[in-house]
Amino acid sequence: MSRSDIRITSVKTIDLRFPTSRESIGSDAVNKDPDYSAAYCILETNAGLEGHGLTFTLGRGTELCVLAMDYLSRYLVDKSLDEITANFAAFSRTLTEDSQFRWLGPEKGVIHMAAGGLINAVWDLYAKAERKPLWLLLAELEPEQIVSAIDFRYIDDVLHPAETLEVLRGRKTEQKQRIADLRENGYPAYTTSVGWYGFSDEKIIRLCHEALAEGWTNFKLKVGGDPKDDLRRGRLVRQEIGWENHLMVDANQKWGVDEAIERTLELAELKPWWMEEPTNPDDILGHARIRREVRPIRIATGEHCQNKVVFKQLLQAEAIDVCQIDCCRVAGVNENLAILLMAQKFGVPVCPHAGGVGLCEQVQHLSGFDYLSVSATMQDRVIEYVGHLHEHFVTPVSVRNGRYYLPETPGYSIEIKPESLATYAFPNGDYWKANLVQEDAASVR
Amino acid sequence: MSRSDIRITSVKTIDLRFPTSRESIGSDAVNKDPDYSAAYCILETNAGLEGHGLTFTLGRGTELCVLAMDYLSRYLVDKSLDEITANFAAFSRTLTEDSQFRWLGPEKGVIHMAAGGLINAVWDLYAKAERKPLWLLLAELEPEQIVSAIDFRYIDDVLHPAETLEVLRGRKTEQKQRIADLRENGYPAYTTSVGWYGFSDEKIIRLCHEALAEGWTNFKLKVGGDPKDDLRRGRLVRQEIGWENHLMVDANQKWGVDEAIERTLELAELKPWWMEEPTNPDDILGHARIRREVRPIRIATGEHCQNKVVFKQLLQAEAIDVCQIDCCRVAGVNENLAILLMAQKFGVPVCPHAGGVGLCEQVQHLSGFDYLSVSATMQDRVIEYVGHLHEHFVTPVSVRNGRYYLPETPGYSIEIKPESLATYAFPNGDYWKANLVQEDAASVR
Repeated sequence: MSRSDIRITSVKTIDLRFPTSRESIGSDAVNKDPDYSAAYCILETNAGLEGHGLTFTLGRGTELCVLAMDYLSRYLVDKSLDEITANFAAFSRTLTEDSQFRWLGPEKGVIHMAAGGLINAVWDLYAKAERKPLWLLLAELEPEQIVSAIDFRYIDDVLHPAETLEVLRGRKTEQKQRIADLRENGYPAYTTSVGWYGFSDEKIIRLCHEALAEGWTNFKLKVGGDPKDDLRRGRLVRQEIGWENHLMVDANQKWGVDEAIERTLELAELKPWWMEEPTNPDDILGHARIRREVRPIRIATGEHCQNKVVFKQLLQAEAIDVCQIDCCRVAGVNENLAILLMAQKFGVPVCPHAGGVGLCEQVQHLSGFDYLSVSATMQDRVIEYVGHLHEHFVTPVSVRNGRYYLPETPGYSIEIKPESLATYAFPNGDYWKANLVQEDAASVR
Repeated sequence: MSRSDIRITSVKTIDLRFPTSRESIGSDAVNKDPDYSAAYCILETNAGLEGHGLTFTLGRGTELCVLAMDYLSRYLVDKSLDEITANFAAFSRTLTEDSQFRWLGPEKGVIHMAAGGLINAVWDLYAKAERKPLWLLLAELEPEQIVSAIDFRYIDDVLHPAETLEVLRGRKTEQKQRIADLRENGYPAYTTSVGWYGFSDEKIIRLCHEALAEGWTNFKLKVGGDPKDDLRRGRLVRQEIGWENHLMVDANQKWGVDEAIERTLELAELKPWWMEEPTNPDDILGHARIRREVRPIRIATGEHCQNKVVFKQLLQAEAIDVCQIDCCRVAGVNENLAILLMAQKFGVPVCPHAGGVGLCEQVQHLSGFDYLSVSATMQDRVIEYVGHLHEHFVTPVSVRNGRYYLPETPGYSIEIKPESLATYAFPNGDYWKANLVQEDAASVR
């Protein structure tokens, strides 16, 4: 069946919530009690194929993203896959430039995250239709097709279609060897699972031991609490993992600019490989100043950056050493293509944010594409790994010896098992029917 | 009844939509068909007083802001007015830092706009309880009270509580004279009503004539269409209003950075008093570059700036000549106090965005406070005026001879007449029951 014959007949949305707050999983200095959740969508077609997509949320408020998806679905229903992919940038813009909806952004927050989930579902469908994993589909698309998927509006002062085409064409050289290398050796990763904010010292020690035994060499610790606690926990991790391994620290936006500089310098003795989210994600100039004043400690941010215009400026202002894309806060794969290419232009390595619900499953495809078609290197690049909720996925990530081994299954690996969708649908799934407490119930529509 | 005796018992929300798109009112280069709308809230109390608030929207998607308000209402119900106002910054932070909801922002888009509407309703209630119009309440508060209403988090690298206190204390000098001056002479304004994008040349000419007869001296024209059209319409307005009056042009984010520079220079012959929203509102560095390259044309933006962190950077980067606050895109009065004080520190005049639903009614209070307690001048300062929907307000603005005369009625002037709320509630108000068309119905929950 060709892409012009595959038609989206309806879009089903699900408010999906996992009760992770019960175990402090995902806890950090700012996000104390996340219930890892997703506004989930399924594009149903006339061809038996489905496209699955999601945007990641923390529990309450997921219903807003679901409603926004419901609204934006109008731009997908009755479209053939070919109509969408033939001018993918124009399609993406119909979702981000709805003349009334746009006022609620533009291109940020609830409505943009909803657009991201839907666009990712289209890519999942596209890759399934082409019978390829997304990373391979992207790598094998013609450079012209990649360029036509990017909306250059508002970034064409730093990235032009013509130069983008040139970069992508150049990367066709030796791409086959890189594909073989990626398949054989995987892509480097780091683990965040050892150092959540709510974990006790004992638990951190035990988890470090286990992670070392599993072959991990890159570790991330949540900071942003009492300065003495942060340092004690950091020393603890260093004691366990030694100095030959990488340790990153992550403040999750806890500090103002002055405080971030002070606190980062206090953590210098830990020799962090990077300091992540030292301050507010909107503060481009703040990050630039922090970076200047804490050198040589490297600055990372991005998981909360709302769109390509903010990433553009973080790069222009020399505010970051590490560009942390997120697969669904921005408008999906298309916007991330633009961000990967801008990062490449500015020579900044991309290390995706992951964890959450299915973020690991998704971002491995984007890093794969970065290696195969954009940066052509894995130097200083690692994908975040968090070891939870993978059991709910039809094609969970395969991580061994601290490396991602990319899937060969067609699609974008977003698909969640039907039984998990049924159990954790909010508020009427089996889990929530049995466990809904007063506080959760307050956000029921 | 004292503030500690006034208790918020419940929060009622209304999805309110006016069918303005039928007449091209509010149309510009980006927003082609707005139905001026509001997520509206009423704080009900045990004291017979009500606090009214709203956030302005363009139609579809208003339901998202209403739902977000419903959720955030939990932080208001059962609170006494005194509990809230005694530490107003902490209260504001409970709305913006909800640990699960925050992920959908932070402090931007749907959830932040909802917080703004609720916070404004508290100020409306506060001013009614004190039996003063908000502008006078704000002016007469002790400097310590103003400072305690500001959340300095993420802006304390440019604005400190101590220096803020000093500015406010200094402005107590001659404040009484300024109050008398404001009451007698009003506050200067400009009109946007003559130059909407969808208006014909004939209509523009007629409206310019009428506006001149009414005493207007400052006029704004929407641009961002075909370059020849923009210039023709601009010359038309100049022909009518002459060169002694001010003409501002507004592109409503239509252009990329390079295009904005080119197009602004093409409009230089119109001698615009400012060029408004030449590009994406998130592009701080883009605005800074545009400003450098189109000098001496002044650059204005702000109605789409999501929060104080973006305003901080626009000022730090010397990106704007005119700071256009919006009363409800940010988290209400409190966040605008911070923005007014930052603009004062950087010497940039504040000219509020208005129009929409009740924005004129609200921003006059903020400009009044700016004159009385912050900048102490009206030099180069004008409030936007758009002449529609005022008939729905209990205390509509009083604009004569191109100046706002501020209200003496207690409150923040947000209150809409009960019959208008009943008629334009969406989708069950009388107007919509009679006029709902297919396209509108698609966004019904």
